[in-house]
Amino acid sequence: MKLYTRSGDKGQTSIIGGKRDKDDIRIEAYGTCDELNAFVGRAAALLNEEMFSDIKSELITIQHELFDCGSDLSTVKKDATFKVDESMITFLEERMDDYTEEAPPLQRFILPGGTSAASELHVCRTVARRAERLTAKLMKEEAIHEEVFKYLNRLSDYFFAAARVVNYRLEIADVEYERSAIVFHTSKKQ
Amino acid sequence: MKLYTRSGDKGQTSIIGGKRDKDDIRIEAYGTCDELNAFVGRAAALLNEEMFSDIKSELITIQHELFDCGSDLSTVKKDATFKVDESMITFLEERMDDYTEEAPPLQRFILPGGTSAASELHVCRTVARRAERLTAKLMKEEAIHEEVFKYLNRLSDYFFAAARVVNYRLEIADVEYERSAIVFHTSKKQ
Amino acid sequence: MKLYTRSGDKGQTSIIGGKRDKDDIRIEAYGTCDELNAFVGRAAALLNEEMFSDIKSELITIQHELFDCGSDLSTVKKDATFKVDESMITFLEERMDDYTEEAPPLQRFILPGGTSAASELHVCRTVARRAERLTAKLMKEEAIHEEVFKYLNRLSDYFFAAARVVNYRLEIADVEYERSAIVFHTSKKQ
Ligand code: B12
Ligand code: B12
Ligand code: B12
Ligand SMILES: C[C@H]1O[C@@H](n2cnc3c(N)ncnc32)[C@H](O)[C@@H]1O
Ligand SMILES: C[C@H]1O[C@@H](n2cnc3c(N)ncnc32)[C@H](O)[C@@H]1O
Ligand SMILES: C[C@H]1O[C@@H](n2cnc3c(N)ncnc32)[C@H](O)[C@@H]1O
Ligand SMILES: [Mg+2]
Ligand SMILES: [Mg+2]
Ligand SMILES: [Mg+2]
Repeated sequence: MKLYTRSGDKGQTSIIGGKRDKDDIRIEAYGTCDELNAFVGRAAALLNEEMFSDIKSELITIQHELFDCGSDLSTVKKDATFKVDESMITFLEERMDDYTEEAPPLQRFILPGGTSAASELHVCRTVARRAERLTAKLMKEEAIHEEVFKYLNRLSDYFFAAARVVNYRLEIADVEYERSAIVFHTSKKQ
Repeated sequence: MKLYTRSGDKGQTSIIGGKRDKDDIRIEAYGTCDELNAFVGRAAALLNEEMFSDIKSELITIQHELFDCGSDLSTVKKDATFKVDESMITFLEERMDDYTEEAPPLQRFILPGGTSAASELHVCRTVARRAERLTAKLMKEEAIHEEVFKYLNRLSDYFFAAARVVNYRLEIADVEYERSAIVFHTSKKQ
Repeated sequence: MKLYTRSGDKGQTSIIGGKRDKDDIRIEAYGTCDELNAFVGRAAALLNEEMFSDIKSELITIQHELFDCGSDLSTVKKDATFKVDESMITFLEERMDDYTEEAPPLQRFILPGGTSAASELHVCRTVARRAERLTAKLMKEEAIHEEVFKYLNRLSDYFFAAARVVNYRLEIADVEYERSAIVFHTSKKQ
C-alpha cells in the first residue's frame, strides 16, 4: 500500500459525502480534533499504569471518542448517523466530579504546570479549547452534530480536573496565580 | 464544587465585562496565551533546579505574567485597570541580554532543537509568536492594552535566548541552518 | 548583539522583499512551519541513536527543509529563486514506502499514540497538516512556490509512516480505532 495518493496536491480534499478546500473551516475543526488526539497520546504515554490506571484508561477511551468527533465533523452526507452521544458527556462529568472531590478545594486560578504529566494534560485542556473555538465557528456556517460541541466543552474541564489529580497524587502542590481573584464558585444550581 | 456550568454549550461565553461568541478573536487571543502558558509549564518541568534555577524561576514568573496578559485581554469593562506594565518587558530584555552574552555569538539561523528542554523552549517561542499574531488581529478590530502586545513580542525573543543557553550549558552545540544567509546583525542603534 | 529590535511593537514586520501586518496569512503560514520545526526538534530529541539512526537523521534533514519552506514562503521579491524542489518530495516518498513496508499492514485508523516518540511524531503529523491548511489559504490569495505545498502534504504522511515504525521497533502494537471502517486501500493506480 502507498500511503500518499497525491490527490490533495492542488488544495482540495475529500470528506465523507463531499469535497472541500483544505482551508475549509470544517477541515480546520476536525484537523484540530486530530491534533488534540495526538497530544492525548503524549499525555497517556507519560502516565504510569500503577498510580494512574484510571486516568490512563480514560485517555484511551477519549482517543476513540475524539475519532468519533472527527468522524461526525467530517460527515456531510444526507441521512448520516452520528457517533457522539450524551452518555459520553455524562461519563466525563462523572469522572471529573470524582477528581474534583479527590483534589484539594479550589478558589483561585492555578498555574498550568507542576509535574510533566499534569502540564501535558493542561496542554490537552487548551488544545481542546482551540478545537472547541473552531467548531463554534463551523457551527455558525453549517449544521453539525451538536453533541460534538458539548463534548469538546466538557472535555477541557475534564483535563483540568485530571491535571489537578495527577499533581495531587504525586504530592506536588498546584501554584496559585498570585494576582487571581476568587474565581471558582459553587453555583446556585448545584 | 462542580467545575462545569454547561453555560457555554450553545456557543457563547462570558468575559470580564461582557459576553462573546466562542470564536471571537478576543477569545482566540487569550485562549492562545493560556495554551502558551501550558507549554511553559512543560518546559519548566523539564529543567532541573541545579543547572537552571535562573531560567526555571523566570518561567514561573512568566506563567504569572501570562495570566496577567489573559486577564488584560479578557477585560472589556469601562474604567478597567490593567496588569501588564513596562517593567515586565524591561525584565525580559535584561535577562535575554545576559543569555545572549552567555551563549556563543550568532550569525545564522539555528535549528530549533538540541536538548529536550531547549526544543520545548523553541515550542514556547513559536506558540508565543502565534499568540502575538492573534493579538495583532484583535488590535485591528478593538482597543487592547498595548503593553500585552509588546510583552508577547519580547517573550518570543526571550525563549530563543533561553533555549540557546540551555543547549550551551549542557554542551550541545546548536546546529546552523545549512542554507542560511548571515541574518543576525548588530543594529546601528545598539 | 541585541536580539530584539522593538521594530515589530506596532503590529508590522518585515519579510524578504516587503513588509506585512503580523496577522497576514503569509506570516501565519511560515510561522506555523517554524512551530512545526520546533516540534520536530522535540521528536528528534526523543529518539535514541542506536535504534533510530535513520529516522533521527531524516528529522534533522527535515528541519533544514522546513527552513527552506519558511524561506520560500517569506519571499515576495521579484525574480526570487526558491529552495524547495521535487527531489525533497521524492525523498519523503521513498522513505515512507520503506517504513510502510517495515510496519505491519494497515486497514483501519489507529490511535495516535503508543510510545512517547511515536506520539510526538503524531503531533508533528497534525501540526504539518495545520501548516498545510494555512498554506492552502495563502495560495488562494497570493502566488506561492507550489512545491512547498506538496512538500507539506507529503510530510504529514511521512510522519505517520515514521510513527508506526517507531512503535513497531519498540514492540508496542498500534491500537485500532474501535469504530473504524476499512479506510486504507491500495488504489488502482499503485
Ligand atoms: C475522515 C478521514 C480522516 C479523519 C478521521 C476522522 C475520524 N473518522 O475520526 C482524520 C483527519 C483523522 C484522518 C487522518 C488520516 N487519514 Co484519512 N480519511 C478520512 C476520509 C475522508 C473518510 C474515512 C472514513 O471514515 N470513511 C468512512 C467510510 C465508511 O466511508 P466511505 O468514504 O464511503 O468509504 C467506503 C467505500 O467507498 C470504500 N472505499 C473508499 N475508497 C476506496 C478506494 C478503493 C481502492 C477501494 C477498493 C475501496 C474504497 O471503502 C469504504 C467502505 O469500507 C478518507 C477519504 C474518504 N473519502 O474515504 C480519508 C483517508 C482514509 N485518509 C487517508 C490518510 C492517508 C490519512 C492519514 C495517514 C493522513 C495523515 N498524514 O495524517 C491519517 C491517518 C490517521 C490515523 N491515526 O490512522 C487516505 C488513505 C490512503 C490510502 N492509501 O488508503 C484516505 C483514503 C484519503 C486519501 N488520501 O485519499 N482521516
Ligand atoms: C478570564 C477567565 C479565564 C481566563 C483567565 C485569564 C487570566 N485571568 O489570566 C482563562 C481563559 C485562562 C480561564 C481558564 C479557566 N477557567 Co475561567 N474564567 C474567566 C472569567 C471570564 C473571568 C475571571 C476573572 O478573572 N474574574 C475577575 C473578577 C474580579 O471579576 P468578576 O467577573 O467581576 O467576578 C466577581 C463577582 O462577580 C463574583 N462572582 C462571579 N461569579 C460568581 C458566582 C457565584 C455563585 C458567586 C457567589 C460569586 C460570583 O466573584 C468575583 C469577585 O471575586 C470567569 C467568568 C466570569 N465572568 O467571572 C471564568 C471562570 C472563572 N472560569 C471557569 C473555568 C471552569 C475555567 C477553567 C477550568 C476552564 C478550562 N477547562 O480550562 C480554566 C482554569 C484555568 C486555571 N489554570 O486555573 C469557570 C469556573 C466555574 C466555577 N465552578 O466556578 C468560570 C466562572 C466561567 C464559567 N464557566 O462560568 N478563565
Ligand atoms: C524570514 C525570517 C525568519 C524566518 C526564517 C524562515 C526561513 N528562512 O526559513 C523565521 C520566521 C523562522 C525567523 C525566525 C527568527 N528570526 Co527572523 N527574520 C527573517 C527575515 C524576514 C529574513 C531573513 C533572511 O532569510 N534573509 C535572507 C537575506 C539574504 O535577505 P535580506 O533580507 O536581503 O538581508 C541581507 C542584507 O540586507 C543584509 N542586512 C539585513 N539587515 C541588516 C542589518 C545590518 C545592521 C547590516 C549590517 C546588514 C543587514 O544582510 C543580508 C545579506 O546577508 C529577517 C528580516 C529581514 N528582512 O532580513 C528576520 C530576522 C533575521 N529575524 C530576526 C529574529 C530575532 C528571529 C528570531 C530570533 C525571532 C524569534 N523570537 O523567534 C527567530 C530565530 C530563528 C532561529 N531558529 O534561528 C531578526 C534578527 C535581529 C538581529 N539582531 O539581527 C531579523 C533581522 C528581524 C528583525 N527583528 O529585524 N525569521
Ligand atoms: C473560563 C473562561 O474561558 C473562556 N472560554 C470559554 N471557552 C473557551 C474556549 N473554547 N477557548 C478559550 N477560552 C474560552 C471564557 O471567557 C470563560 O469564562
Ligand atoms: C524574524 C521574522 O519573523 C517574522 N515574524 C515577526 N513576528 C512574527 C510572528 N508573531 N509570527 C511569525 N513570524 C513573525 C518576520 O518576518 C520577522 O522578520
Ligand atoms: C485523511 C483526510 O484528512 C483530511 N485532510 C486532508 N488534508 C488535511 C489537512 N491539511 N488538515 C486536516 N485534514 C486534512 C481529508 O478529509 C482527508 O481525506
Ligand atoms: Mg468551557
Ligand atoms: Mg518579534
Ligand atoms: Mg495529505
